[in-house]
Amino acid sequence: MGTPPPSHGRAAAAERDDADPLAAFRDEFLIPDDAIVYMDGNSLGRPPRAVADALAAVVQAGWGERLIRSWTEGWMDVPLELGDRIGALLGAAAGQLAVADSTTVCFYKAASAALDARPGRSEILTDPGNFPTDRYVLESLAAQRGLALRWLEPADPTCGPSAEEVAGLVGEQTALVTFTHVDYRSAAILDMPAITEVAHAAGALTIWDLSHSVGAVPVALDAAGADLAVGCTYKYLCGGPGSPAFIYVRSELQKTLRQPVWGWLGRRDPFQMDPGYEPTEGIRAFLSGTPPILALHALAPGLELVTRAGVERIRAKGIALTELAIALADDWLAGYGVEVASPRDATIRGAHVALAHRDAAALCRALIERGVLVDYRAPDVIRMGLSPLTTRFVEVWDGVNALREVLAAQHG
Amino acid sequence: MGTPPPSHGRAAAAERDDADPLAAFRDEFLIPDDAIVYMDGNSLGRPPRAVADALAAVVQAGWGERLIRSWTEGWMDVPLELGDRIGALLGAAAGQLAVADSTTVCFYKAASAALDARPGRSEILTDPGNFPTDRYVLESLAAQRGLALRWLEPADPTCGPSAEEVAGLVGEQTALVTFTHVDYRSAAILDMPAITEVAHAAGALTIWDLSHSVGAVPVALDAAGADLAVGCTYKYLCGGPGSPAFIYVRSELQKTLRQPVWGWLGRRDPFQMDPGYEPTEGIRAFLSGTPPILALHALAPGLELVTRAGVERIRAKGIALTELAIALADDWLAGYGVEVASPRDATIRGAHVALAHRDAAALCRALIERGVLVDYRAPDVIRMGLSPLTTRFVEVWDGVNALREVLAAQHG
Repeated sequence: MGTPPPSHGRAAAAERDDADPLAAFRDEFLIPDDAIVYMDGNSLGRPPRAVADALAAVVQAGWGERLIRSWTEGWMDVPLELGDRIGALLGAAAGQLAVADSTTVCFYKAASAALDARPGRSEILTDPGNFPTDRYVLESLAAQRGLALRWLEPADPTCGPSAEEVAGLVGEQTALVTFTHVDYRSAAILDMPAITEVAHAAGALTIWDLSHSVGAVPVALDAAGADLAVGCTYKYLCGGPGSPAFIYVRSELQKTLRQPVWGWLGRRDPFQMDPGYEPTEGIRAFLSGTPPILALHALAPGLELVTRAGVERIRAKGIALTELAIALADDWLAGYGVEVASPRDATIRGAHVALAHRDAAALCRALIERGVLVDYRAPDVIRMGLSPLTTRFVEVWDGVNALREVLAAQHG
Repeated sequence: MGTPPPSHGRAAAAERDDADPLAAFRDEFLIPDDAIVYMDGNSLGRPPRAVADALAAVVQAGWGERLIRSWTEGWMDVPLELGDRIGALLGAAAGQLAVADSTTVCFYKAASAALDARPGRSEILTDPGNFPTDRYVLESLAAQRGLALRWLEPADPTCGPSAEEVAGLVGEQTALVTFTHVDYRSAAILDMPAITEVAHAAGALTIWDLSHSVGAVPVALDAAGADLAVGCTYKYLCGGPGSPAFIYVRSELQKTLRQPVWGWLGRRDPFQMDPGYEPTEGIRAFLSGTPPILALHALAPGLELVTRAGVERIRAKGIALTELAIALADDWLAGYGVEVASPRDATIRGAHVALAHRDAAALCRALIERGVLVDYRAPDVIRMGLSPLTTRFVEVWDGVNALREVLAAQHG
């Protein structure tokens, strides 16, 4: 409250934008209304300018001119080619990712495959703060199979489950340990290597949901020994609303894990249409139906931009943006009862910030009316997503300042 | 062989194009190379001209300008709105179809839901000529649940399973009876009302795969008493490669049937993100993940064209095109050992024609090299798909004539 310190002035934020090595990337995105303060790029990333042309091109050439021939002229490999490019952002060697289906369906396949690979074990471990669709899928599979879901309630909800807490709950009955790597509410980054190691020590498999990680924070799937992972491409990868998700299956596991939705595109020699399902080689066996070619082409431009910017630079800007948001919130909003509900340690915080307030729902509505697009997350979180390639420092300033003004007006 | 009768001349075919009430619809499609004879519109329908603009518009406005707000400004309902429009082509009242996921995933959900609803029954009935992905999904579910797959080998493979044959194989152990309504090889139309009645008499549920029916032949799902159905939208509906599929669940069954992939978009109040999955009301409960918005917008123009043309007119032209293909094949190709492997009764034949020949694979390659795009279906079928909105009578003439020329050259 009061006058912000000079380092927190809007001019200072503008100077940081001028000095931002990623500033030019914003021009690669379609931003029809520059007055909007967009703090939801972690929910729906902005459209890359190249998307409409990429779609027009595939409609004209691949679909219109080449017609059905396109399937044998490259389309069959698009899910795996994009998978490899996403894998490069996630520390995964080639041949371990495929892009297809929704995140929910990918997670269902991954979890079903993992549970099949641990017969005789009766428990699934996750946390109640995990993303809803993951929790619901786990409930579904637990009900189908008569398994128990164990819920890890972290001692520190802001930072989420620790490896020590996981170690206290896994055992010889644990089939699967699964968490979201960057928490969708708090932005807490879990310790993937340590938790994976603890799960493995108990003989369990792991699935990491990377929806709020990919394109935002460094991930090292192979180095961490991760077994399976899934993630969303319409957040930081800017693939478009409902764009297809990815699934990662560690190469050593691809021969033994078997996904449940046996479809023709995952079968050996699919166009032979032979009797009897036999999974094909490699990650392709995790495909089921016909790949969504138009949607895959819409995803390519965002993926290219993220790749060109580089995860390290994206990460550095994500930290700088969230640090600014937290500093402004501390200075301006604490007196109104707003608490930072994200980790203060930037090394364990993703690219969004959670601000907790008892009137969060109403505050979010007021912000959205003012053109500051944030997300409300029940019961008390105002979530500010600060997607590094499209969010400016002045936008952070304007967004937090708008919240200050809304609160100040309420307090007369 | 020899000179074709006058009624089979190319000029006669051209006259039929001139008189075709649907001729103008071809102009609504993007056809960059008019020299191609396209007989694969039943595999990948041609792109409607309006698709690129529809995609550009949703990228610019819905995604670019409205951003995340679009989810509450209409996007959530797109899968159901398109579902209702497809339902109108299939004799289904509103509120019974949703569009999302691949056909394979939709079929998996439908079959799993049906099997759950018939506990204690141990058998699934289908035919070995059913489309591969359906067979593989059934194998998967049978393996998961310890059920038996019974394969109905029809006495007349050209016409497919009859209601009488189904009656001979269903019983108190039959949980599910499922077939493709229009056979993907022969184009045989099965008797949906009679087979459904026989299945119901045995206490079984039915799933109809309408991939080769929708937009090509009349279907009366509600009147037939169908329980569940799925179908592909990238064939006659021209939704684009890998466009999302649809699932139909009869309204009376929506409260009791439960699909297995519990995801946030099928839950009551999804944005509350509450603990515990509770299916929402109606067909929406059959959704799982985030709807593929771009792909859904790409589907709308083709659906609009089919709707505007009307199923009856499409059907009439489909019959006329296939009758011409069969007449030409009889006149020109029988002497080369080509046999018509589709029903000769037009009332039980969809909009494609199967021509059987022992060298079908090589003949298909030769045709494709000449720009006549047909499909080879192992072991001996040349499949000519004659999508009524985009296929001309002269195209049928040219395609069959090309096959005559290829065969004539082989025979010196």
